[in-house]
Amino acid sequence: MNTTYDSILRLRAIRKYADRPIEPEDLRRVLEAARWTGSAKNRQNWSIIVVEDPEQMARLASCAPFGGPLSAAPTALALVQEGSTYGFDIGRMAQNIMLAAAALGMVSCPVTLHNNEKAVEVLAIPEGRRCRYAIALGYPGPASSPAKAGGRKPLHEIIHHNSYGS
Amino acid sequence: MNTTYDSILRLRAIRKYADRPIEPEDLRRVLEAARWTGSAKNRQNWSIIVVEDPEQMARLASCAPFGGPLSAAPTALALVQEGSTYGFDIGRMAQNIMLAAAALGMVSCPVTLHNNEKAVEVLAIPEGRRCRYAIALGYPGPASSPAKAGGRKPLHEIIHHNSYGS
Repeated sequence: MNTTYDSILRLRAIRKYADRPIEPEDLRRVLEAARWTGSAKNRQNWSIIVVEDPEQMARLASCAPFGGPLSAAPTALALVQEGSTYGFDIGRMAQNIMLAAAALGMVSCPVTLHNNEKAVEVLAIPEGRRCRYAIALGYPGPASSPAKAGGRKPLHEIIHHNSYGS
Repeated sequence: MNTTYDSILRLRAIRKYADRPIEPEDLRRVLEAARWTGSAKNRQNWSIIVVEDPEQMARLASCAPFGGPLSAAPTALALVQEGSTYGFDIGRMAQNIMLAAAALGMVSCPVTLHNNEKAVEVLAIPEGRRCRYAIALGYPGPASSPAKAGGRKPLHEIIHHNSYGS
């Protein structure tokens, strides 16, 4: 039994949450895990907008065609790419956030803000920055089970050796 | 003490490795963690090329201006984005790989393949796919400490509330 390894395999996106706010200390620890994420050349060209105001959350949810988890969650973390930061680094941060949240008894779901331009406006993000992803964050509630089974392709379908197709 | 949470905070990119190959069972478990990574709509539009052949590894390293970790490592995992998969999902997979590797006693380093076109050629990747990132993977050796201290910005520099700048 390897706790960390098993936590990675068990992580699932959860779209429904208990009807209570995130405790400040739990939020701080999740943000701390985000902060320690590695990035290309350790540039850390990112920031996080913690959305807890219900009206602001509703506006953020309206930037995403699949924004249901944002409407359901007490807190969202909008991930801002500053300058030329790539989605890759933001994805690494998202995974740290989700794994840390799970380790601390929370559940979460990444949401793509397909209407980027509106998200930038809603969040008052200055020029030269993008916000394409947010993480909905909450405590598990009675309805908190994955919406679908969410299996994965078998290894032999996704692994090659030394070159593609081998 | 929360093992998973602490592992997330402690993860660092390591660029030097012990001079021995990755055990097949350790590799399998790392790939299993990669396989279980979440992706938008559970599309899993990705594959992984496991590079262990030394000549192929040298060719892959030559696709990256900072490819030193690839030259030093016994194994690399080249992350292939199939179709329209975003860097965000690939970044989530990379973080799972790195955290799983650390949990199983390995060390790793993400490498950007700045010369994408050459990487696609070297790895014989068919059209419609991209390969922008690889993870160098090995066991820790005597020289395996982070090259630089690699601190992080303090939280107040990267966190806003409800809108940018607040």
